[in-house]
Amino acid sequence: MSLQALKDEVARQFGTPAVVVDLDVVERNVARVQALCDAAGIANRPHIKTHKSPVIAALQREAGAQGLTCQKLGEAEIMAESGHDDLLIAYNLLGEEKLNRLGGLLSRVKVTVAADNPVVVAGLPQAAAKAGRNLDVVVECDTGRRRAGVETPAEAVALAQEIASRPGLSFAGFMLYPPENAVAETQAFLDAATAGVRELGLEPRIVSSGGTPNLVHLGKIKDVTEHRAGTSVFNDRMMLAAGVAGLEDCALTVYATVVSRAGPERGILDSGSKTLTYDTGGLDGHGLILEHPQARIARFAEEHGFLDLSACNDRPSVGDVVRIVPNHVCVVVNMVDRMVAVRGDTIVGELPVAARGRLT
Amino acid sequence: MSLQALKDEVARQFGTPAVVVDLDVVERNVARVQALCDAAGIANRPHIKTHKSPVIAALQREAGAQGLTCQKLGEAEIMAESGHDDLLIAYNLLGEEKLNRLGGLLSRVKVTVAADNPVVVAGLPQAAAKAGRNLDVVVECDTGRRRAGVETPAEAVALAQEIASRPGLSFAGFMLYPPENAVAETQAFLDAATAGVRELGLEPRIVSSGGTPNLVHLGKIKDVTEHRAGTSVFNDRMMLAAGVAGLEDCALTVYATVVSRAGPERGILDSGSKTLTYDTGGLDGHGLILEHPQARIARFAEEHGFLDLSACNDRPSVGDVVRIVPNHVCVVVNMVDRMVAVRGDTIVGELPVAARGRLT
Repeated sequence: MSLQALKDEVARQFGTPAVVVDLDVVERNVARVQALCDAAGIANRPHIKTHKSPVIAALQREAGAQGLTCQKLGEAEIMAESGHDDLLIAYNLLGEEKLNRLGGLLSRVKVTVAADNPVVVAGLPQAAAKAGRNLDVVVECDTGRRRAGVETPAEAVALAQEIASRPGLSFAGFMLYPPENAVAETQAFLDAATAGVRELGLEPRIVSSGGTPNLVHLGKIKDVTEHRAGTSVFNDRMMLAAGVAGLEDCALTVYATVVSRAGPERGILDSGSKTLTYDTGGLDGHGLILEHPQARIARFAEEHGFLDLSACNDRPSVGDVVRIVPNHVCVVVNMVDRMVAVRGDTIVGELPVAARGRLT
Repeated sequence: MSLQALKDEVARQFGTPAVVVDLDVVERNVARVQALCDAAGIANRPHIKTHKSPVIAALQREAGAQGLTCQKLGEAEIMAESGHDDLLIAYNLLGEEKLNRLGGLLSRVKVTVAADNPVVVAGLPQAAAKAGRNLDVVVECDTGRRRAGVETPAEAVALAQEIASRPGLSFAGFMLYPPENAVAETQAFLDAATAGVRELGLEPRIVSSGGTPNLVHLGKIKDVTEHRAGTSVFNDRMMLAAGVAGLEDCALTVYATVVSRAGPERGILDSGSKTLTYDTGGLDGHGLILEHPQARIARFAEEHGFLDLSACNDRPSVGDVVRIVPNHVCVVVNMVDRMVAVRGDTIVGELPVAARGRLT
């Protein structure tokens, strides 16, 4: 089948907008990340928040991933239901509803959770008690990103001690999400925190780092034992802009139809903020149109993508189907209940986004 | 039940983040819009893209709405499955897949569609033929918003003639989505287009206008026969900022938990761009926290809301549940499969977002 025939066939079978994933590219991306981790002697624990698919998680496990990372408890439940074990939930879990569910999950599979404060640590024994099994807890450390995480090695050590003192909890190590330019700062933080917990007789068995752009830094931070990368499975316009992926590494595109030209310099796509989302990833424009790279997706209504075609010589016509590399692929996958799976120019099936919308 | 008890109970039963809708407020909002339309002698055709719920659509119909507006064909299919008839699909539909489905829908319920170009009009007879029934088509006119729509009255007249010339299609009138400050320009466009089609022996039976902020302009544009408002059913921070709703009119809030304080001037919510979305609605900050109105939701990761608490005297603690009025409610509803329904401080059930993710 030619590319044009594929586009016609996707539109005919599924309509547009459609989220289309090339499994050949996915498999190459999965193999590349595994090879990078293997070369660095670091365990691979891919983050499933990007694909939310137990099927793609299975590809990652078969390629050698040690376990999976989930951001929300609900994602971990979906992975466990599909037979995946050894799950890191990289998130502070608290409240009776979540602790009950965490206990249920822990009774079925191996789970590690992150914590960055004593309130969260105080709740976790309830989950371990419900499961009748110890819960491994890593201390989330902020080494410059200013998201969650304890802000100093001293806080990390204190929280490790707090974890170790609680019934049913085991201090398992540290979780980092270092900024790409903060290797030295991260190393200093990690060294100090490690020395501190060792003085208490505790050993960080796990030092988890993360991020697709940090794959090129694998091994630079000493003592890291495993890595969480999400976006690398599909890649997107942010990864192109960061120079860590090429167009041939972008496994996911959104097929959209030009439904109106509106004016000579303009055009309207049938994909708006309810498909491509308003997450810019810090970039100008809201996606790369492969057929018209000079077209700018300037803004959105909920179901309209506003095209600025003023820089285009070759302008699309009403009815044309185009392929868009989204700025941030993780949020786009989360908009749809299924992806269309292709290999090259051939449709091979559908992939349910099984953990879509698992916000809790 | 007190408000605090309600918050505790929502968190206990559903976990956070949770999208919570107060049906008492919804019913007041529905009644208010209907009364405005009745007073202006204009039919009410609420836009279901905001709530995506056949149950709430039924409240609107029972209050007197003549029909419903849908943005996508898939939304209309969901409404029809729930017994709703007389549907306006305010969107250019094209491509074999959509025209087949449109034909199927038209064979079951009364449907009107919009078109703004001859390519779309050329396809629509296929749907009418499949249904064995005439399809009403309104010409979408752009009177200044620069989204979809023909840009001049002459184009509108030419497209009306094109519609009338096609087998199975009836020219039904015009569809407008006027900017709030463009009453005179819109009237001039409409007058010229109406005069033009009358010269051809055509009559615009429908002149559809839209937008929640335009509810205060109802009746100012002469010859408008019906109005499409979506956001008014719930309202949001954009409507507060536009001065067309008060806090007591905001029916929907997102319940979120503070999961980390991260630093003294900071905090982290368990609601990020996969819950509240990056749609700013042109406002600073990403939502209004009712308990801490001086807190700024500064930015997002996918599952993290970054709080800037520097302007807050009373700062939230880890574990606190807060209620957030989102900037743009329509895109937030679309992130979840269900809403929690309350009346005042009492949980009364769950509302499925039946048309969530119906992008095609």
